[in-house]
Amino acid sequence: MKLKMMYSFLNTDLQLIEKEMEATLQSDSHVLRQASLHLLQAGGKRIRPVFVLLAAKFGDYDINVVKKVAVALELIHMASLVHDDVIDDSDLRRGAPTVKSKWDNRVAMYTGDYIFARSLEIMTEVKKPLAHKILSQTILEVAVGEIEQINQKYQFDQNIRTYYRRIKRKTAVLIAASCQLGAIAAGVSSDIHIKLYKFGYNVGMAFQITDDILDFTASEKELGKPAGSDLRQGNITLPVLLAMEDPAIKEMVLEIRETMPQEELSKVIEAINGSGAIERASAVSEKYLNKAFAELKGLPVNRANKTLYEIARFIGKRKY
Amino acid sequence: MKLKMMYSFLNTDLQLIEKEMEATLQSDSHVLRQASLHLLQAGGKRIRPVFVLLAAKFGDYDINVVKKVAVALELIHMASLVHDDVIDDSDLRRGAPTVKSKWDNRVAMYTGDYIFARSLEIMTEVKKPLAHKILSQTILEVAVGEIEQINQKYQFDQNIRTYYRRIKRKTAVLIAASCQLGAIAAGVSSDIHIKLYKFGYNVGMAFQITDDILDFTASEKELGKPAGSDLRQGNITLPVLLAMEDPAIKEMVLEIRETMPQEELSKVIEAINGSGAIERASAVSEKYLNKAFAELKGLPVNRANKTLYEIARFIGKRKY
Repeated sequence: MKLKMMYSFLNTDLQLIEKEMEATLQSDSHVLRQASLHLLQAGGKRIRPVFVLLAAKFGDYDINVVKKVAVALELIHMASLVHDDVIDDSDLRRGAPTVKSKWDNRVAMYTGDYIFARSLEIMTEVKKPLAHKILSQTILEVAVGEIEQINQKYQFDQNIRTYYRRIKRKTAVLIAASCQLGAIAAGVSSDIHIKLYKFGYNVGMAFQITDDILDFTASEKELGKPAGSDLRQGNITLPVLLAMEDPAIKEMVLEIRETMPQEELSKVIEAINGSGAIERASAVSEKYLNKAFAELKGLPVNRANKTLYEIARFIGKRKY
Repeated sequence: MKLKMMYSFLNTDLQLIEKEMEATLQSDSHVLRQASLHLLQAGGKRIRPVFVLLAAKFGDYDINVVKKVAVALELIHMASLVHDDVIDDSDLRRGAPTVKSKWDNRVAMYTGDYIFARSLEIMTEVKKPLAHKILSQTILEVAVGEIEQINQKYQFDQNIRTYYRRIKRKTAVLIAASCQLGAIAAGVSSDIHIKLYKFGYNVGMAFQITDDILDFTASEKELGKPAGSDLRQGNITLPVLLAMEDPAIKEMVLEIRETMPQEELSKVIEAINGSGAIERASAVSEKYLNKAFAELKGLPVNRANKTLYEIARFIGKRKY
């Protein structure tokens, strides 16, 4: 089953969220309006809004409140992507030119700031102090995660704990917050929104580990970029860390530079793929997924619960 | 009287705020901690915290609440400066190397994001929904102002309204918000905090216009950068707009490029200085100051009121 089919019953509300995002990003500044619309039209899975909506189904689901939370979280994600593209000097994202390539780095920096500001503005309409506290801590983790990601590039001697902390901040906390804040916006008890937070955290970890595995196992066509792109950029992910336990592979990895010819990089990728590291990394992802499933078992059984289960299972099995 | 002498009775509280900022910006990321401390040590007038404290004196002054607001506003200001330095490619600010020059643009972008996130985090400790609404709208205005400032550079055909809107967003709203939020944190009535907002707005406008005048009238030594630096960078300020009403000066201004030799630029500066535009711009600044004084007259008479008056008067008369 395709991902979008799993939550087709949310389509009306997701369309409402899309419209709300478009309305939120209106600006009398021409370039901000253009850059923001460009980003919206580039699309995306909108997985954070989906998690917000599903989590809200465990409480008093009022789309007029819940949609604010969904928009705020998706905009925070979007703003962080725009800044990431400046840092990574990326020209393409989701097959479309990035803001920094279509305009320039300055526009990208300020468009990120602007989208972020809009997201804060829409959140003030949600009258739940706890939601604001959680959101601000999430934003903080994401900001620290961004800078850690730069600083830890090409640091081949980092340990696995550093990796876990990095992907927690880069990916898992925002998904966890999406689940928790959707639930809080629907007024659920803390027992339930904490379980949903843990569900989101574990799914987020599994999601990122799977992403990091695909950099080695998926084809260039599936990835939309050459295999091993993360590795070439010095992004030391779980498969790399596990494979480096073999001294011969470690020696190869230590030679990696951004300018390394693709055929040499391919040899490193082959070595990593043949080392058993992919299977071990998959097992770790599986472990996180099982924890996510366990949280769902402690939650009321309903359609949202079933859908969260299916999405999590999909994430664990996706091939690209 | 020196500016700092006017509010020396706030020194204990200002020192507390300085310590709170330092504590707030702690991070287990080495580079974030270093870059943040570097910014703190570069100092600054801390005029926004001063306005927060003085405005809070009109209500129930609790330094433990008020300091959170003061820190949040100063950090938002600081974060926007870090991003500005990336945009302007500035190597020095307040005589110290900028984050983008001491580290690089990427670190500067993420340090800005990080400081901004910390500011939001500390604000969640202030349990006043109105304060959050005002703050988020302020942040939005500042973000839009930043991008307008880029887009309107070298746009010699902009009108004066565009200039006023730009400096409102660039400077006045954050000072206005400092006054209003300090008052709200101290639980004053809306009658009073709205007056303080208007006071801050008018002082902020006068402050920026004076700043824009000094680019023409102050010496390189006073400014810490060559006279006419704003003009060279295509920043079309009030003196320029007024001087351009003379077609001969307009013709000279239209020739301005970043690479123009300093002696040629000096001729343009001389022409603007001799056109009467400086005096007219000063009169506009005076007009804003008088509006600010009028707001103070509607507020309770106390030491804070007197100090706000003195600060505003100083701002109107300062020579650098």
